[in-house]
Amino acid sequence: MTGTFWGERPDESLRVGPGFRLEDVDPDSKPGTNANKAEGLAELASSAQELRELQEKLFAQSREGAPQRLLVVLQAMDAAGKGGVVNHVFGQLEPYGLELTAFKAPSEEEREHDFLWRIEPRVPGPGVIGLFDRSHYEDVLIQRVRGFAPPEEIERRYGAIAEFEKRIADEGVHIIKIMLHVSPEEQASRLLDRLDTPEKHWKYNPGDVDERLHWKSYMEAFQIAIERTNAEHAPWFVVPANAKWYARAAVQRIVISELQRIAPAWPAVKFDVAAERERVQQSLGLRWP
Amino acid sequence: MTGTFWGERPDESLRVGPGFRLEDVDPDSKPGTNANKAEGLAELASSAQELRELQEKLFAQSREGAPQRLLVVLQAMDAAGKGGVVNHVFGQLEPYGLELTAFKAPSEEEREHDFLWRIEPRVPGPGVIGLFDRSHYEDVLIQRVRGFAPPEEIERRYGAIAEFEKRIADEGVHIIKIMLHVSPEEQASRLLDRLDTPEKHWKYNPGDVDERLHWKSYMEAFQIAIERTNAEHAPWFVVPANAKWYARAAVQRIVISELQRIAPAWPAVKFDVAAERERVQQSLGLRWP
Repeated sequence: MTGTFWGERPDESLRVGPGFRLEDVDPDSKPGTNANKAEGLAELASSAQELRELQEKLFAQSREGAPQRLLVVLQAMDAAGKGGVVNHVFGQLEPYGLELTAFKAPSEEEREHDFLWRIEPRVPGPGVIGLFDRSHYEDVLIQRVRGFAPPEEIERRYGAIAEFEKRIADEGVHIIKIMLHVSPEEQASRLLDRLDTPEKHWKYNPGDVDERLHWKSYMEAFQIAIERTNAEHAPWFVVPANAKWYARAAVQRIVISELQRIAPAWPAVKFDVAAERERVQQSLGLRWP
Repeated sequence: MTGTFWGERPDESLRVGPGFRLEDVDPDSKPGTNANKAEGLAELASSAQELRELQEKLFAQSREGAPQRLLVVLQAMDAAGKGGVVNHVFGQLEPYGLELTAFKAPSEEEREHDFLWRIEPRVPGPGVIGLFDRSHYEDVLIQRVRGFAPPEEIERRYGAIAEFEKRIADEGVHIIKIMLHVSPEEQASRLLDRLDTPEKHWKYNPGDVDERLHWKSYMEAFQIAIERTNAEHAPWFVVPANAKWYARAAVQRIVISELQRIAPAWPAVKFDVAAERERVQQSLGLRWP
């Protein structure tokens, strides 16, 4: 249980509602908790078991035909902490039933198809938690900001995304969409840290600075994407992410809350337990070699 | 570092060599260590960081074109501990660059193709650790024992597997094949435990008892498969697995040792660090909103 760490739960306080304005979200804020970093890390560790149990039940019930699965979409500016959330929150899960897809710039083959063509095969199957590190939202974020697609095509995509998400939600996919929100100052500090640390050089991409210079346009693109695609069956959560520990604990709690809404249960057995026990007992004389 | 836990390293002591006989392996034995369970669990935890660092370097160097990747094949009788190894050893890894495939009985479509048709797409790409929970070896194990394929077809498959593994090894895939070896008594005890524990019922399959009755034939099939496909570039390791903690610590060390042989290194940067630092600094005036 979450104990006293959370006051207002982040699945409520960070959920996008009517009239949402991204510029009102302070990346330094920590809604729902007065805890400090040490307490945040303790919360992250102590809730891991709760998360794993829900995951195992979700996976188990799917073996007997339950259709539910979870899709978590992570979007953010570079160095906002997606990687840390993947490793420290979703890395707590068991490898069975976790499917991570890190979407890169589309390949030539992918660009020859509709933008959702590469997304569809990565939607999780029953019992699975699918995690998108970037997603179809790139097609209305960087593509909008950098003009990689004409305005009328970008406009079409908001509707296409809404229809796509509605369709898979109807099939049993629970969808939560998370934006990690850092300030440009914090991003600069993290980029400089990568440059100052040789074993982090491989994570640095000069293109990140190019994108950074379009910060205002990106925030506008996020605002519009969030407004146009926020839905009861596919809600957006904007997580203040200047403090990594806060962002990780908040994402963990949002995921736990959604799994609790699914309320997975151990499936009913389809065999006679006593008879099976007898069969195993009878085979006990077995010896090898 | 492994400290004093291991005397003879399991990547040496458990590696199949000339004249190997499965019946000489005692599932209760713990080659290479005199440690107890508590020390085994401590070793598992304390070596996790070493494993993660090797994984991160393997992934990082692939971003700059290094072709190496690792394929770990896990095979065993039911309830021998594959799931525990996946969760407790490979669950220590970061989700990036870990790809787990749990092969089930082949689908109708899969049975219409050669047995390697469904395997090939799951071979890990550069930088990735691919983990097979069951594999193409099922096609010479259960299929041989239960006569699902005629003897001449089984015979053909040993050669096909050897050629397949040689080909992918030449492409940069490091292959290690691990059999977790339990005794029939220990398997019965674990099956009974599943039957006695409602939240483990979903892991119980009445078919496991049917297979169990063919124990001797399975061991013969393992012996032949291991003999026919053991190779310098794709070695087999037989891990005594009656003690779960021993099996997990041994698999962890075998994987670490193989990654050390790959010896991944941080890739060289392809940008001017000082110039990039300057670009980030210059962008610091950026404010939003």
